[in-house]
Amino acid sequence: MSRFWSAVVHGLTPYVPGEQPKVDGLVKLNTNECPYPPSPAVVSAIRDELGADGARLRLYPDPESEALKAAIAAHHGLRPAEVFVGNGSDEVLAHIFMGLLDHHQAILFPDITYSFYPVYCALYGIAHRAVPLSPSFEIRPDDYREANGGVIFPNPNAPTGRLLALDAVERIVAGSPDSVVVVDEAYVDFGGRSAAALVPEHANLVVVHTLSKSRSLAGLRIGYALAQPPLIEGLLRVKNSFNSYPLDRLAQQAAIAALADEAWFDQCRQRVIASRERTSKALAALGFEVLPSAANFVFARHPGHSGASLADGLRRRRVVVRHFARPRIEDFLRITIGTDDECDALLDALRDMGLG
Amino acid sequence: MSRFWSAVVHGLTPYVPGEQPKVDGLVKLNTNECPYPPSPAVVSAIRDELGADGARLRLYPDPESEALKAAIAAHHGLRPAEVFVGNGSDEVLAHIFMGLLDHHQAILFPDITYSFYPVYCALYGIAHRAVPLSPSFEIRPDDYREANGGVIFPNPNAPTGRLLALDAVERIVAGSPDSVVVVDEAYVDFGGRSAAALVPEHANLVVVHTLSKSRSLAGLRIGYALAQPPLIEGLLRVKNSFNSYPLDRLAQQAAIAALADEAWFDQCRQRVIASRERTSKALAALGFEVLPSAANFVFARHPGHSGASLADGLRRRRVVVRHFARPRIEDFLRITIGTDDECDALLDALRDMGLG
Repeated sequence: MSRFWSAVVHGLTPYVPGEQPKVDGLVKLNTNECPYPPSPAVVSAIRDELGADGARLRLYPDPESEALKAAIAAHHGLRPAEVFVGNGSDEVLAHIFMGLLDHHQAILFPDITYSFYPVYCALYGIAHRAVPLSPSFEIRPDDYREANGGVIFPNPNAPTGRLLALDAVERIVAGSPDSVVVVDEAYVDFGGRSAAALVPEHANLVVVHTLSKSRSLAGLRIGYALAQPPLIEGLLRVKNSFNSYPLDRLAQQAAIAALADEAWFDQCRQRVIASRERTSKALAALGFEVLPSAANFVFARHPGHSGASLADGLRRRRVVVRHFARPRIEDFLRITIGTDDECDALLDALRDMGLG
Repeated sequence: MSRFWSAVVHGLTPYVPGEQPKVDGLVKLNTNECPYPPSPAVVSAIRDELGADGARLRLYPDPESEALKAAIAAHHGLRPAEVFVGNGSDEVLAHIFMGLLDHHQAILFPDITYSFYPVYCALYGIAHRAVPLSPSFEIRPDDYREANGGVIFPNPNAPTGRLLALDAVERIVAGSPDSVVVVDEAYVDFGGRSAAALVPEHANLVVVHTLSKSRSLAGLRIGYALAQPPLIEGLLRVKNSFNSYPLDRLAQQAAIAALADEAWFDQCRQRVIASRERTSKALAALGFEVLPSAANFVFARHPGHSGASLADGLRRRRVVVRHFARPRIEDFLRITIGTDDECDALLDALRDMGLG
């Protein structure tokens, strides 16, 4: 506490990201990173931009990331004016909350969802109402038909991993034509169909992506939003009132290279999907209830053990997963899908704890 | 305009950064970049972090940039808890405006200063009052003694380049003990003494630095703030409610390497200072009034030519400088100090335009 803080600061409860362990030798299944490296083309692109002496680093990057926007637009069959980029999808989301979701009515999001959403609301003074997921942890589109100042949800949802079919997504978008509906697709490449294709038809739709998961670039911080030009222009006004140059030179080139390597992308996500199905079955065989996942993680609970005790037992066996001490999900573990070896290490640790 | 925009968006007039030309062959003296490449240690550090296959890029960076904060603290003789880092000093400034400068009274800054300050005020709804510089474009410390919600100024000031002596800076800090005073030292390494040494003595002082200028890393986006721990904690609360991971892996390692190479740093800034003095004299010989500069740019006007016509004539001769069409300074050019060859190209172009 400090009298020098602006009033808003006193009311903030910041987001707490998953641990980035400082010790080696852990099986790290807690922050939904991809277990495979990025495309070799990413490494080449960074080396090229770096050059022999790093001379280009002395110059500011393109403040509007025009080449990257063109690459993203081409990837989704959209126009560059329908693309907004930022320093990770968290920054993109922050600008969306400030620029497009602050109206006179409360915004809506699921009661169990990405826990950064209420943090943004506190930062920008935006009222919100949590809409309960179904007993089986599904988003029910009709629940979002009430009057609202905006709607946001991840698809697949996090931390549940459950996917909402694209026609149900469109029902939510069409059901709130007077407010912005944000579909946060951080995990969509692992089994969903993107709502990007709906952008030309819906003036109120924003689709958010990241290169952190399916492109193996969490370490570089690149996210983007897709929407019709008037919404993108609103985001640009916020961005250009905040930081002219959110994406550095190396990240811009790396992102362009990552998007160009479709074969690498497909191979990585297919491997993750195969490991997810294998791990889900093995967890079920150990007695876990595993929610159907379309993401690069699974959300699972065991009838005989609390979530806290499982997370603790795994940690003592050097396997790190994520546990949320929150209502309805306190007995679940969110387990990132690693390599098959890492998933086997998880299963071995669970057996060592007496499960199965 | 869009009905989907939050109310604040309608009132924004975004900052316009200096042009990043898309064509080659220009003498680029418009955005205060360093003409020399970064330390070779920066290139090595990026290559090391990248590794053979970029595998580390799949993992999130340290969200708190602890190693970098330790390096910055050591550089300034402070503690890591007195350091805040961000994605360029513009992001650091944005968080400062939101977290430390939004109180019930207007904040104060010079009438001629970094033109991003009023943009932040609009973004966060902060009232401000412009305090006129003296007729010779100097900050007068006594002008900042009136009641205020905060004070911010660059030192050296931009775009004037004029330096305020450290004892005068301290007078301003001590004169507003109940509000935060921000000293934006983006250019201090080119001739000023940093107020960082005053941090332990003043609970209301924030000093902002960037690695974009004197460390030749504009392309990587690294800035930081120095202040006592309660102010840093306020900034961390805002940052962790906005984006957990503002600095990517490559930028963190590059910054640590840049700070470690003191010899390179000293050589670069001494070369820039020598070129500045030489260019200032040459401009004076052509009839310019050149304000005394402690930065890596000079601010100069010519009694026989308007600023706009000079900027335009230079541009037609492939030399890009910055011109601000704003009261009191519309006849000035802000000229970045490049290599001696680049400065000679500027002088040749001016002679070609009939000056001297």
